Amino acid sequence: MIPPAHLLDFLKREDSFIIAAHLSPDGDALGSALALSMALEKLGKRTLLLCRDSVPEHYLFLPGYERFCTFDTAVSSGIAIQEFRNLILVDCNEIKRTGMERSVLAYLTFQASAVIDHHETEKEFGDFKWVAPDIAATGMMIYYLIKALGIAVTKEMAINLYTALIVDTGNFRFENTSPEVLVVAAALTEAGAPPHLIHRELNESWSEGRFKLFIKLLNTIRIEDGIAITTITKRMFEETSTSPDDTESFVSFPQVMKKIRVAILLREVSENDYKASLRSRGAINVARIAESFGGGGHKNAAGCNIKADIETARAGLIRQVKEQMNEG
Amino acid sequence: MIPPAHLLDFLKREDSFIIAAHLSPDGDALGSALALSMALEKLGKRTLLLCRDSVPEHYLFLPGYERFCTFDTAVSSGIAIQEFRNLILVDCNEIKRTGMERSVLAYLTFQASAVIDHHETEKEFGDFKWVAPDIAATGMMIYYLIKALGIAVTKEMAINLYTALIVDTGNFRFENTSPEVLVVAAALTEAGAPPHLIHRELNESWSEGRFKLFIKLLNTIRIEDGIAITTITKRMFEETSTSPDDTESFVSFPQVMKKIRVAILLREVSENDYKASLRSRGAINVARIAESFGGGGHKNAAGCNIKADIETARAGLIRQVKEQMNEG
Repeated sequence: MIPPAHLLDFLKREDSFIIAAHLSPDGDALGSALALSMALEKLGKRTLLLCRDSVPEHYLFLPGYERFCTFDTAVSSGIAIQEFRNLILVDCNEIKRTGMERSVLAYLTFQASAVIDHHETEKEFGDFKWVAPDIAATGMMIYYLIKALGIAVTKEMAINLYTALIVDTGNFRFENTSPEVLVVAAALTEAGAPPHLIHRELNESWSEGRFKLFIKLLNTIRIEDGIAITTITKRMFEETSTSPDDTESFVSFPQVMKKIRVAILLREVSENDYKASLRSRGAINVARIAESFGGGGHKNAAGCNIKADIETARAGLIRQVKEQMNEG
Repeated sequence: MIPPAHLLDFLKREDSFIIAAHLSPDGDALGSALALSMALEKLGKRTLLLCRDSVPEHYLFLPGYERFCTFDTAVSSGIAIQEFRNLILVDCNEIKRTGMERSVLAYLTFQASAVIDHHETEKEFGDFKWVAPDIAATGMMIYYLIKALGIAVTKEMAINLYTALIVDTGNFRFENTSPEVLVVAAALTEAGAPPHLIHRELNESWSEGRFKLFIKLLNTIRIEDGIAITTITKRMFEETSTSPDDTESFVSFPQVMKKIRVAILLREVSENDYKASLRSRGAINVARIAESFGGGGHKNAAGCNIKADIETARAGLIRQVKEQMNEG
């Protein structure tokens, strides 16, 4: 895969870049931004890594993570943001996804902008765009960029990019695990990324509270006609000293069962107010179901809010899922 | 990686082979044997696939699995076993590991034998041996063999070998996930192995009973000083219509917690008789602990039987683990 020449020229020609990740950053956004920053600095460029939110705790093993600034820390620590003359959006393709507010944007005086992303888009933002929805992770694109720029992949870059890859391919389990993904993973491992240690950091760093929350959640499971519904109440968070951040990946766990076609997690936000996360496999479109409750998302992963008591919420969801199953 | 010339010559020269997998076969043994059989048949050879045990249910998606014979079915279906003039042991390196009894061995009149295995060994069996403990899976060795024989890898071979690879590398999470493993995985995916579908067959085919057994097991967890102990009673199997086969991988689940250094699963065999499975990470040697109860295994995965009531069994194990931790 060869990145577009206009983007390569832009990166070679300019001297300073703000690299911005999207809000609520994941491993692909963080790893991609960090590796790109490291690569550009090898070329003698100056970079500033920006993200609205601070780096989540389970990504604090990423080499260089401490170089990420939130807008506030960038301003308060006296970084001359205006000196960075170009903006690169990574793993997103519009300013809105970075969560930058007007007051922040006013600080930015970039002369040109680039977009490097693998999400589908109709967006107009960006002077130099590389948007490739067929590529499994933005981290793959950054790898191709680094190679095209003639830079050797360091161990630090490799760990960041390997993390990006496995986060966006579900550790090589999702349908987007193409031969190219595995070829790049091999090259990154060769360059020093240790798969087993990265796996341990990402997936084996639960607190005891999180484990206990998981057990409580499993104990609530209701299974009906291929639909599994689990529930988390506010009291469960209190009893286990955990927060909604600790529920990542919980929704999909019941899919280990062969017969489960749709998995739903209902999380109590406040009394008679639930956030529903929906996951499906194959043809069943959970975005449609979420939309019928005013939410949205992708075909196999979506979410919505439901203002009702738990029994009404469950019954309403099951009714909609069954309708969708009959249509599918 | 180039297989030894003597083995390649043997495979090219001879016309008929019994390919035997070890007893209690796993994905590496089954996938390797099946792919090797398919490859040799492309060269016009005749092969007979033998295993003492029938193919476990969760491997019934492997292309060609139905060609495996147990010794009994091979004899009772009138296959002229004596016509197969050579024996190849796959994923094991001694006759004992195949579970063949004397009465079965009497049927075999092979003139020469080969061994293709990645387990460490001091064993003397085999006229043509290729034993490579540094290679993550026997499936990798079969892939190199197929390439060296100049045979194109078919989709059916690729699915078998990809399964072998991910079973023995924990889906690319174990320390043996080398760049070579990922390079071969990429080639197999290119040849038609679909990672997401193989993952689903292997890891997302639990019965509802197995899921309920898993919840019951989690509810028994006791955590103390980095040691997690879970318990399964005979009654739990009855209540969920499951069997010990359904507990695969349960022992290691508590290792999702960062602080867990040793995970133990105690399974009731009969009254006051428990089978203990032990898992550790890094330096702690659970084989030593198992040995102190008359069992054995590897450094990070071992097992033993304990004849005691549950509280005594737990206390004894915790005492031994703590001693091992202090030594380590």
